[in-house]
Amino acid sequence: MTHQQTITVNTRGRGTTEITDEVAAIVRASPTACGLAHIFVLHTSGSVILTENADPAVRRDLELLARRWAPDADPAYAHSDEGDDDMAAHGRSVLTGSSIAVPVTDGKLVLGTWQGIYLWEHRTQAHRRRIVITVLG
Amino acid sequence: MTHQQTITVNTRGRGTTEITDEVAAIVRASPTACGLAHIFVLHTSGSVILTENADPAVRRDLELLARRWAPDADPAYAHSDEGDDDMAAHGRSVLTGSSIAVPVTDGKLVLGTWQGIYLWEHRTQAHRRRIVITVLG
Amino acid sequence: MTHQQTITVNTRGRGTTEITDEVAAIVRASPTACGLAHIFVLHTSGSVILTENADPAVRRDLELLARRWAPDADPAYAHSDEGDDDMAAHGRSVLTGSSIAVPVTDGKLVLGTWQGIYLWEHRTQAHRRRIVITVLG
Repeated sequence: MTHQQTITVNTRGRGTTEITDEVAAIVRASPTACGLAHIFVLHTSGSVILTENADPAVRRDLELLARRWAPDADPAYAHSDEGDDDMAAHGRSVLTGSSIAVPVTDGKLVLGTWQGIYLWEHRTQAHRRRIVITVLG
Repeated sequence: MTHQQTITVNTRGRGTTEITDEVAAIVRASPTACGLAHIFVLHTSGSVILTENADPAVRRDLELLARRWAPDADPAYAHSDEGDDDMAAHGRSVLTGSSIAVPVTDGKLVLGTWQGIYLWEHRTQAHRRRIVITVLG
Repeated sequence: MTHQQTITVNTRGRGTTEITDEVAAIVRASPTACGLAHIFVLHTSGSVILTENADPAVRRDLELLARRWAPDADPAYAHSDEGDDDMAAHGRSVLTGSSIAVPVTDGKLVLGTWQGIYLWEHRTQAHRRRIVITVLG
């Protein structure tokens, strides 16, 4: 039976928030023994990513790369209704993705040793982000 | 029970075509109440993405960014069998992805207010693209 | 009934290894007639991608693009514990994704004519990579 739950994450503006523990708890509480957990953010200016969970410098360097992939305040942008970071946020979201799916085995999330699940906020201001977690199998 | 359907989209060359309504109708017609809808393009020079659905300038700006991510006619490319946009299209497809999965709740697609589903054609010429939609849960 | 299997791929350092046949065989051996196959790498410095399977120059050109998306030895990186290719590998993994899902119809993987499934190793040294394949529907 499919289990679905929505969580809310309050971000502090641009940067990553680890949500591995929240997702793992939802998977453990679900009836699925073998299948997938899907983690989906309901916004177009944030991403859900998997990345290295040991050294916080990795996530700071990802921010550095993202500034090149989709810079703020680019004079070539036509869309800037919500400020200098508006189109940059949409670009980063399309590049790095709104959702991931992770295997579930023996009722538990399966991740490599160094893999963590992160909500990546792309707007400079703090936001309240809703994430839908679906566990099925 | 899993429901699967293939749709065809005729593109007018490079750019986005919204397919949210087509996907939503397939989800409503499926027997799945709670689960996922997976939308997959059967080609390596187009993408399926989620992005902002209100201001068309966002999708024009995505095109602007894509020209930097994977430019046309780069003299460094070894692959150009089908023209100046050939390798650029493969690069954009790998970056932005061939498929997405979206939650289904109460028999309906769950999207944020500003999220739309788009087929992104990366070739400059018009193409006939096949998209497989799988609804399961 | 969900079927899950882990395979190991020995890479020869940076570059792509096709795994379409291994995944197709696991799908055929699974009880799922209609659904999805999910292919997930348990590491943060490799990706699972879909791309053109005919001309190897496409994958060499992807490597060329990746050098621009996330260069080695960038003096701006804070994270370089494991060498010049360390942060570049994490950046490429976040950009191109740790997993894909592919439709299954009549008990077989559904791919377009030119679509192949590849493990993309982003580290310069050879690595042993574990990939979890989940078939459900």
